Amino acid sequence: MNPASYPLLETINEPADLRRLPRAELKPLADELRAFVIDSVSKTGGHLSSNLGTVELTVALHYVFNTPEDRLVWDVGHQTYPHKILTGRRERMASLRQLGGLSGFPTRSESPFDAFGTAHSSTSISAALGMAMAAKQKGDKRHSVAIIGDGAMSAGMAFEALNNAGVCDCNLLVILNDNDMSISPPVGALNRYLAQLMSGQFYAAAKNVGKQVLKGAPPLFELARRLEQHAKGMVVPATLFEQFGFNYIGPIDGHDLESLIPTLENIKHLTGPQFLHVVTKKGQGYKLAEADPVAYHGPGKFDPAVGLQKASGAGKPTFTQVFGNWLCDMAAQDQRLVGITPAMREGSGLVEFEKRYPQRYYDVGIAEQHAVTFAAGLACEGLKPVVAIYSTFLQRAYDQLIHDVALQNLPVVFALDRAGLVGADGATHAGAYDIPFLRCIPNMGVACPADENECRRLLSSAFAQPNPVAVRYPRGAGAGAAMEAGLQPLPYGKGEIRRHSKQASGIAILAFGTLLYPALAVAEKLDATVVNMRWAKPLDVDLLLQVAASHAALVTVEDGAVMGGAGSAVLEALQAAGITVPVLQLGLSDTFIEHGDPVKLMAMQGLDATGIEASIEKRFPAQVSTAKSALKLVA
Amino acid sequence: MNPASYPLLETINEPADLRRLPRAELKPLADELRAFVIDSVSKTGGHLSSNLGTVELTVALHYVFNTPEDRLVWDVGHQTYPHKILTGRRERMASLRQLGGLSGFPTRSESPFDAFGTAHSSTSISAALGMAMAAKQKGDKRHSVAIIGDGAMSAGMAFEALNNAGVCDCNLLVILNDNDMSISPPVGALNRYLAQLMSGQFYAAAKNVGKQVLKGAPPLFELARRLEQHAKGMVVPATLFEQFGFNYIGPIDGHDLESLIPTLENIKHLTGPQFLHVVTKKGQGYKLAEADPVAYHGPGKFDPAVGLQKASGAGKPTFTQVFGNWLCDMAAQDQRLVGITPAMREGSGLVEFEKRYPQRYYDVGIAEQHAVTFAAGLACEGLKPVVAIYSTFLQRAYDQLIHDVALQNLPVVFALDRAGLVGADGATHAGAYDIPFLRCIPNMGVACPADENECRRLLSSAFAQPNPVAVRYPRGAGAGAAMEAGLQPLPYGKGEIRRHSKQASGIAILAFGTLLYPALAVAEKLDATVVNMRWAKPLDVDLLLQVAASHAALVTVEDGAVMGGAGSAVLEALQAAGITVPVLQLGLSDTFIEHGDPVKLMAMQGLDATGIEASIEKRFPAQVSTAKSALKLVA
Repeated sequence: MNPASYPLLETINEPADLRRLPRAELKPLADELRAFVIDSVSKTGGHLSSNLGTVELTVALHYVFNTPEDRLVWDVGHQTYPHKILTGRRERMASLRQLGGLSGFPTRSESPFDAFGTAHSSTSISAALGMAMAAKQKGDKRHSVAIIGDGAMSAGMAFEALNNAGVCDCNLLVILNDNDMSISPPVGALNRYLAQLMSGQFYAAAKNVGKQVLKGAPPLFELARRLEQHAKGMVVPATLFEQFGFNYIGPIDGHDLESLIPTLENIKHLTGPQFLHVVTKKGQGYKLAEADPVAYHGPGKFDPAVGLQKASGAGKPTFTQVFGNWLCDMAAQDQRLVGITPAMREGSGLVEFEKRYPQRYYDVGIAEQHAVTFAAGLACEGLKPVVAIYSTFLQRAYDQLIHDVALQNLPVVFALDRAGLVGADGATHAGAYDIPFLRCIPNMGVACPADENECRRLLSSAFAQPNPVAVRYPRGAGAGAAMEAGLQPLPYGKGEIRRHSKQASGIAILAFGTLLYPALAVAEKLDATVVNMRWAKPLDVDLLLQVAASHAALVTVEDGAVMGGAGSAVLEALQAAGITVPVLQLGLSDTFIEHGDPVKLMAMQGLDATGIEASIEKRFPAQVSTAKSALKLVA
Repeated sequence: MNPASYPLLETINEPADLRRLPRAELKPLADELRAFVIDSVSKTGGHLSSNLGTVELTVALHYVFNTPEDRLVWDVGHQTYPHKILTGRRERMASLRQLGGLSGFPTRSESPFDAFGTAHSSTSISAALGMAMAAKQKGDKRHSVAIIGDGAMSAGMAFEALNNAGVCDCNLLVILNDNDMSISPPVGALNRYLAQLMSGQFYAAAKNVGKQVLKGAPPLFELARRLEQHAKGMVVPATLFEQFGFNYIGPIDGHDLESLIPTLENIKHLTGPQFLHVVTKKGQGYKLAEADPVAYHGPGKFDPAVGLQKASGAGKPTFTQVFGNWLCDMAAQDQRLVGITPAMREGSGLVEFEKRYPQRYYDVGIAEQHAVTFAAGLACEGLKPVVAIYSTFLQRAYDQLIHDVALQNLPVVFALDRAGLVGADGATHAGAYDIPFLRCIPNMGVACPADENECRRLLSSAFAQPNPVAVRYPRGAGAGAAMEAGLQPLPYGKGEIRRHSKQASGIAILAFGTLLYPALAVAEKLDATVVNMRWAKPLDVDLLLQVAASHAALVTVEDGAVMGGAGSAVLEALQAAGITVPVLQLGLSDTFIEHGDPVKLMAMQGLDATGIEASIEKRFPAQVSTAKSALKLVA
């Protein structure tokens, strides 16, 4: 497809342009918009299925509501490409998720049409309610709309917001974008309930039974009518959402503008909290994505005519795969192992585990809090739960980790995927804070594997411990270390020296995690000692003190926040031992780091080999100079 | 009342004794148990209203279920005094909440009958589900029972657990202990809905209408029966809990053993997730508590015959009161201020604010996640939200603070009450981790007022900032500083020197928070410089470097976790500046610290003046010796 295919879309530079279109042109516009999304995502990669599902809904919302004066809060926000395209960012879609380009999520700093930044799920109702109550307080007449998927609705905070909103008298509209799918297949009672609503047999059926049978018998017909009223509203409210105080409307077809627009127009004039149930289809309008919405959830670049091609199968395994393999192997060895995911079966590498051990696999839905306390309950009974969770999503279960797991010292393993920077998903998904927020918690262990094989072995170490242990590993592949097949643990809280400096009192680099490898490269140039610390907690204090005693300068390196991170643990331990050696702390700076190619981002943070070397040379010029001279003499 | 009043109770040393009693003796036993609870709490202080509400339920549960083989998980757990008394801890109740004594909450290490440690709300269904699924996996036949209040049910994680449990086939019983009250009065749609269920008119009414009117007309009666079935289960499930997949039973009278015991006996034989709705009354059986359950929620010692006496009114104001006054004063000055509490109106000092500014007051229920993102939404619209939340409960909203507030750099003030150790509530409520978990987050500010007046002024500083700022202050009263009436802020990120050492290069103590005062006392004895740092973030680096340059040794003091805390921020800043001065870090050790008198606990942590002095002398003997000699010479 070429740009000439978008004659209508090219006239839309902001939603006001859209609102000037005749109604008859909205359908062709939506078709162009869908084609544009497919074309654009095929060139940049990104989210596809979800965006194809929201094309008509996006057109209808901007047509009916006076954006940006009316607020649209898109839950999760990976379904906002149509929204971005219609709100002045069509031409920038080519830069999507790239350094300096458009974010893959709504971002307040990017556009006034992005009323609230999202990316983690289930925040939209809370935020939109805040906006609605603020409008009420200020006497503004604007509308606030939250658009939330059925997957996101299973998270507790969505319910907390519904519970609060149901008693608030304000212009809040919650749109449930029900596509029967979060990233992983749907789970849980709510989803089953929504399917029941969508079956269309629920209320209409009862109504018809009453009317048909009793027709022609006036007093009884009146009785049936009264029973029906009871059945609908007075006796038991018709839907769960009405029980929460919302006016429930739906379900309606979310791909039919002739349903969407009149319904939204009507709702605009209603007062109090409104709940619109819209049914959409992920991947709508692109046959390949409709057939396999999971595969097209977040594809890389592809040819739209051909579709996704199977990966060559070569290449290094990702840490996610390493974890998935370990989980299956350990499950085979230990019957007590159970695996838990909060709706991230694919992302966390649990597909094979579920196949092989369905009775020991728990997908609890988007419900991180429950996932962790559920694991605590399992651990109380002698099972050995492994919670597979992204570092950034563990933030959702922080109190549960402290109060339910660590305080009771239960042996739960946290497999923290996506630690450090995550690349295209950006600041919202960064796993930058886990070392500081975990190591301050008593009883916790925090392992930082340097490569794939260490990841496997440290998972075995974590599993063998009687206390909770997190193993943090980054997105993607590592150094490509050769894998051992066994399940041999590495010692708890112990590091190792990987390279010995030939200098009498030179520089020692203490690496936590995968930055060990650039550190080793730098060490060759500076003749530095390199220590693979492996554990942010417990810190290998013996090894640290030994190294500190024999070196003039230390450098700590980690792919997490410097503030309070593993380097700070080193400083604490040195001071506790009364040692005042100079230490350079390298890690992520105290800023939210945007989306982009992770290699570039790490370089910008000075955490590639070049940056690490430059920082060391700047801080310890004398030692570096001595070491380099000695190396030349040797050479 | 004297011990002679408890002839039956004294025969119960474990629930097996209870199960041997004839049914007729259970009611007199419950009466004794209630009297014992009143007598016991009046002597120790603790929770009263909630425990008077669970007397009969506790008797019934231990009578029907085979504890501890069957698992009881008490949500929050402050209502477990009857449970403790019946499970072998009757005589230890005199030690309740005291150092070395019984915990005020269920604690796994205290008794095998305490199946799961609780204290934060809404964890019970998740934990009990974990236990039930573990039993299923292991082929054990035991039952798992969660007992949860209506207040706790409003938290998201309870819904996450219901959503998951509703599709699990296991022996899980959830008992809703509906007393129409959390600590603060009930709020939210769920509560309104429960009131509707309790009104008793819902389903029974419809059933009777159908039967009475149609009696004597067989075919139509059959129709009515079918309509009734539809109305109950097939058309729309009867209750929200049935929509979640539970078998709903109730509501029944939670003070009537003749209702409770047969119902529980029946439920024991049902399969799949069961939901029993029990209605109880807080304070039941003690007239004064029934009349004012809020006042008797957590009283100190009192004479049961007389009841609570009004506090003398003298004494120092608590930090909570200081905050409450500031909030009202700032609200009067700035129309944009809104106050938010997650169900802690009394505890957080918002009673007066609600009275004076009801339109700007939001109690969102036990819903910390929603509270914070709701605040973010309000802030997006130009309002200035102040979230009043205990340090320990902010752990529940950590991701929301990062993802919704800090990342978007929204000006939300977090008033963190109960920072540091909390005393009688113990480890579960400790506000020990907030400095490490907050200071690693970009854009956040973290203030640590040293006394009441600084608390007021730093709240004003926080309110004036364009970024999110937390002000952390401890439970209870401070040093008793004279209060200024105005709303003058203190400079952002700036400390002050409070005492100058006369030594040329002596010791400087850097205090964060209220430990400034013991530090000042120690400084008099050691002639140390004392710096009131005031901000853990941003750290006053200029002041720090100035002090470091002129002192031979530094000491950091804080009432939070040493690991990653404010002292670590000092170490980081010194190393970043290339300064290698010795630093002694004092703060809370890396252990969960039990309940007890906070003064004693702080002394055990070495954080009273004596302990601080001893630690300094041990670490810096030469400097202390020099300083003490100089002081003697001067004297």
